[in-house]
Amino acid sequence: MAKLYGGIEAGGTKFLCAAGAGPENIVAKTQFPTTTPAETLGKAIDFFRGVMRETPLAAIGIASFGPLDLDKDSPAYGTVTTTPKPGWADTNLVKIISGALNVPAALETDVNGAALGEQRWGAARGLDTFIYLTVGTGIGGGGMSNGQLMHGLTHPEMGHIFVPHDLKKDPFPGCCPFHRDCLEGLASGAAVAKRWGKPAELLPADHAAWKLETGYLAAGVANLILTLSPKRIILGGGVMKKAGLLEGVRVRVRELLNGYVNSPVITEKIDEYIVAPALGDMAGVLGAIALAQQ
Amino acid sequence: MAKLYGGIEAGGTKFLCAAGAGPENIVAKTQFPTTTPAETLGKAIDFFRGVMRETPLAAIGIASFGPLDLDKDSPAYGTVTTTPKPGWADTNLVKIISGALNVPAALETDVNGAALGEQRWGAARGLDTFIYLTVGTGIGGGGMSNGQLMHGLTHPEMGHIFVPHDLKKDPFPGCCPFHRDCLEGLASGAAVAKRWGKPAELLPADHAAWKLETGYLAAGVANLILTLSPKRIILGGGVMKKAGLLEGVRVRVRELLNGYVNSPVITEKIDEYIVAPALGDMAGVLGAIALAQQ
Repeated sequence: MAKLYGGIEAGGTKFLCAAGAGPENIVAKTQFPTTTPAETLGKAIDFFRGVMRETPLAAIGIASFGPLDLDKDSPAYGTVTTTPKPGWADTNLVKIISGALNVPAALETDVNGAALGEQRWGAARGLDTFIYLTVGTGIGGGGMSNGQLMHGLTHPEMGHIFVPHDLKKDPFPGCCPFHRDCLEGLASGAAVAKRWGKPAELLPADHAAWKLETGYLAAGVANLILTLSPKRIILGGGVMKKAGLLEGVRVRVRELLNGYVNSPVITEKIDEYIVAPALGDMAGVLGAIALAQQ
Repeated sequence: MAKLYGGIEAGGTKFLCAAGAGPENIVAKTQFPTTTPAETLGKAIDFFRGVMRETPLAAIGIASFGPLDLDKDSPAYGTVTTTPKPGWADTNLVKIISGALNVPAALETDVNGAALGEQRWGAARGLDTFIYLTVGTGIGGGGMSNGQLMHGLTHPEMGHIFVPHDLKKDPFPGCCPFHRDCLEGLASGAAVAKRWGKPAELLPADHAAWKLETGYLAAGVANLILTLSPKRIILGGGVMKKAGLLEGVRVRVRELLNGYVNSPVITEKIDEYIVAPALGDMAGVLGAIALAQQ
């Protein structure tokens, strides 16, 4: 029998927990809203205790909202650091989970977690250099370079890159509390809702919102391509579910690059280059399981 | 006795060739203008033939202008691909050099070459994730992620990322033939010269050029930090030699990030984080030697 692993997708609004060994082999899963650390992590621990009464778990992976301390040499390794989310700052996810369950635990950013899931079982299968960008309430990105999840000084925060903003076409000043009109400040679900006064999913396909959204996302994606030379870009998150948006971004990215990155994948097969996630809403928790398997 | 290696920095205007084993151990070097492939590569071959009459070379590394085909599985591996430089398109540097000298040869981009030199002996010594950006006639960048030089679909072209451009403050439309007002189109030496009608080095320190230049470079550097989370950024190239520019970029990058990347290296020690190259004009050819040693 294959070994079982635990996965936690620790999101800002909900937690998703699962036990299994891959997308075809999930033996249990649950989800609940993110409230206080004590209550939320308590529920996760209860869930895995229940699973472990039947079968042992070899390890648990956690793909979490951040910012996180992922430096294994740091005394704060495993911690959610400076989040404004009430009560969560300095919560050591790794220590709490592995301590309570007596099972080794590993931590990654939510987006690197989803990237790892997609690389193992989804839209980036087998690729050593790729990006996973999620466009939801906020914008976040992760991925691999040279076959390893992207880390460095801390972890990527590519949702916050600066992109051209023509105030004549779009007088909205941006809503990022740190950078005002960075990509997240202009093109996140929160930015769309604030600019137009209603949530993205309620704006019709012919609304002016979508041309702007396409432009900002395409500039961001073009910058990621020029910086990292990824072999594929996966665009996930709630906002990307809008019909036509992915297709529009593909067209605009190709226009912006204008033949400069001279690869047939971009000039002729961009539909295979900028893609939707294959694992959907399970990418994060499956990535957490893949992390546990490492 | 240490083995000797050859290094070629193949630049768009000049070639620099050296034989040695490191910065303290260069036994011969030469440089000459880049003309036709036959003449230029002929001179390089003659130089190394001369060296090899005294001592054998174990391998030769080439750090070249691009774009390059660096895919070892590609039939065109080792080639300068679509350059507009007359005569150089489809020139197979690896085959020509290794064939003529009967020595193994390896190829990298000029900027990845310089990055490798700085990582081996210079300002990025021992770092596994960092960026080397050169601001000269053009803007180019390379570096390492997870301990390996950055590659992917092709190689990074981070000099061409899109950054905010306020046409009210700077009506210059940009001069990149592919992207108009990308970073290179706004902030390269060529852009500065075209915008102000004279070369960057002739513009006094209090000229309006430098405030604009600082802003564009800082936006570009901030984007690279947010995307890759490098442990250090090296800013080289002729334009960066302007007194005060590096210092100005540091200040502006910290303002732009606004505490979001919450690392003391950025908030308190940015002088150690955004730095000048340590190897100066020898970074590229030393990187080529380091490449040969691999």
